[in-house]
Amino acid sequence: MREDFQDELTRVNRTLVTMAKAVREAMRQASSALLTSDHTMAQQVTARDAEIDVLYRVVEDRVYDLVARQQPVAGELRKVLTALQVAADLERMGDLSVHVARAALRRHPAPAVVPELADLFREMSTVADGLAAKIVSALADQDAVLAAQLDRDDDAMDHLHRELFSVMLSPRWPLGVEAAIDGALLGRYYERYADHAVNVGHFVVFLASGKDD
Amino acid sequence: MREDFQDELTRVNRTLVTMAKAVREAMRQASSALLTSDHTMAQQVTARDAEIDVLYRVVEDRVYDLVARQQPVAGELRKVLTALQVAADLERMGDLSVHVARAALRRHPAPAVVPELADLFREMSTVADGLAAKIVSALADQDAVLAAQLDRDDDAMDHLHRELFSVMLSPRWPLGVEAAIDGALLGRYYERYADHAVNVGHFVVFLASGKDD
Repeated sequence: MREDFQDELTRVNRTLVTMAKAVREAMRQASSALLTSDHTMAQQVTARDAEIDVLYRVVEDRVYDLVARQQPVAGELRKVLTALQVAADLERMGDLSVHVARAALRRHPAPAVVPELADLFREMSTVADGLAAKIVSALADQDAVLAAQLDRDDDAMDHLHRELFSVMLSPRWPLGVEAAIDGALLGRYYERYADHAVNVGHFVVFLASGKDD
Repeated sequence: MREDFQDELTRVNRTLVTMAKAVREAMRQASSALLTSDHTMAQQVTARDAEIDVLYRVVEDRVYDLVARQQPVAGELRKVLTALQVAADLERMGDLSVHVARAALRRHPAPAVVPELADLFREMSTVADGLAAKIVSALADQDAVLAAQLDRDDDAMDHLHRELFSVMLSPRWPLGVEAAIDGALLGRYYERYADHAVNVGHFVVFLASGKDD
């Protein structure tokens, strides 16, 4: 019974790793589409989001099935149900990648990111990708140390986010309202993507250590 | 045993109703603070968000306890775990109310909403309050019909959201970048608040009917 439980939990976790890889790839492609005005790639991100949604359902079904058949209690139950919260965060990261891709589509063939902001968004996308890479590894290896490092990356994202606003609100900002609105919303999507990655990290710390950080 | 189960589920649901009332009040106050530049009220919203977070933990603990002790399966299990998802949506609605309140605080004593956008935000806050009122009633009465109406209110919110952008992007927009960035982010907070309310509605439909809509 307990062995079955561990096996099934491992299977759920494997699906979470697959999801995390998919949302990493989604934001990589969305960022690339955004920075190079690549219409095809942006469309691919929106089309493939359905796959991430399916993975979410798979996690949900497996968790429900596991709880119903194994009837875990206390700590074990909490572990199993944490998988649902991780899946919800990952699913949302997929949605945010779609928002970035849609921003690229909306302005195509013009770039959605004006040259004045391109470096900042390149850095934000690098930080986002680093966060996503870390949650893939942290989930795969149940690595609480790696997961705990996410907070630092998130600080870097917050710093870039503040810089973005100071550029757009500077009296030297040479562009209009549309570019600033796009910049503000895109900045928010990256910031939220990072927040959800940090949530996943906290859950991994909990799963690996058995206690909330 | 089954009677206990139903009693405990009712208790969980009562906490969800309390949470829904709290997030309705939070957005009412945040909107009022935003539209009247009321610093004290805005601070109250940010301070009271901790209460909503506590309610979230209460729901979580009760659900875990219920599952561990009653070991529900299949449909019953799904119902219980849906409460967690409702609580997560409500908790997020509380956060979004805080974002609106913080926007008011950031610009105080200047208004965060410029006169050109005040009518639109008044309408958005009315629609948001209507959505929140409906989820309070829908949760309290397990009313699937009321819950299903939320989609219409959400359409109204989307319509206002599009109008907001068309005002800010019009060549006649007399104001600068800062007012537009504030407008875009505030618009997004109201839109997300509505999205989460709609999610809650879908869950209520599922809870009341036993099937996904």
